[in-house]
Amino acid sequence: MRALGIDCGGRYTGYGIVEIHASGELQCLACGAIKLSPRQTLPLRLCSIFTQLGDIISAFRPDEVAIEDVFYALNVKSALQLGQVRGVAMLAAAAAGLEVSEYSPLTIKSSVVGYGRAEKEQVKAMVTRLLRLSVAPEPMDATDALAVAICHLHTAATLNRQRAVAR
Amino acid sequence: MRALGIDCGGRYTGYGIVEIHASGELQCLACGAIKLSPRQTLPLRLCSIFTQLGDIISAFRPDEVAIEDVFYALNVKSALQLGQVRGVAMLAAAAAGLEVSEYSPLTIKSSVVGYGRAEKEQVKAMVTRLLRLSVAPEPMDATDALAVAICHLHTAATLNRQRAVAR
Repeated sequence: MRALGIDCGGRYTGYGIVEIHASGELQCLACGAIKLSPRQTLPLRLCSIFTQLGDIISAFRPDEVAIEDVFYALNVKSALQLGQVRGVAMLAAAAAGLEVSEYSPLTIKSSVVGYGRAEKEQVKAMVTRLLRLSVAPEPMDATDALAVAICHLHTAATLNRQRAVAR
Repeated sequence: MRALGIDCGGRYTGYGIVEIHASGELQCLACGAIKLSPRQTLPLRLCSIFTQLGDIISAFRPDEVAIEDVFYALNVKSALQLGQVRGVAMLAAAAAGLEVSEYSPLTIKSSVVGYGRAEKEQVKAMVTRLLRLSVAPEPMDATDALAVAICHLHTAATLNRQRAVAR
């Protein structure tokens, strides 16, 4: 199974493609961040995110998409801005016929680090280790996107095991 | 000049197509609201808004798009939800190569009613009168979308007059 993790932000939207093999081994196929030019108008920036996420989905053909759920620690203005980017990211997935799962920051950190209140650096170290990367992914938005993809793959693997036991 | 006004909301997204003739006369070509089913997942609802707005743009070929600017009287959760819809609406315009203008509720009410703190019923009555409609548009989301389209056409007409004087 192959997951696309997306981390939406005001200036950067991170993405990460992670595959889980039958052995449970995780592999990073791609990661990076879509940079938004503050000189462009908002509709053009949204267009850019939509097109680039569509290109990533076409190139790597993920089975599912995972995105961070955000209802926390934001003011109204930043929530509105983040929502605009998030809506377009979800649309890119839905337009490609992919399901989108949402995970809270607490769930993502618990799944990746084993501790819901982990610091950014701990998440970075664990993502690097779990994916056996020689260097930590850059920028942090790419790391966060890989973390949500890993969280989704862990969750899906657990659900599949539970279903197998229930049969 | 023909404008598409969009009023984004959690359950309904209103739209209104208004044309301004050389005489200054306004004409409503279409209006309505895209209803979002709470039974659908959010990505599918966003897909539905994007597709339907795209269809409206293809059918009526507006020259420009206007949308309400919202930074007011919302909590973080509703701002995030509204942002998601708003991002997709802006994307639909940008994907069709159209420019998007944003107007505050105060500017819209001032332009349509002549008073920035006008009530919803006053906006409805003035929209109905300015567009010489025999009945008030329904639902309120459609009226609000027509109001933002009218505001944009009034603003564009004023800017054009100023440019003509400056020459």
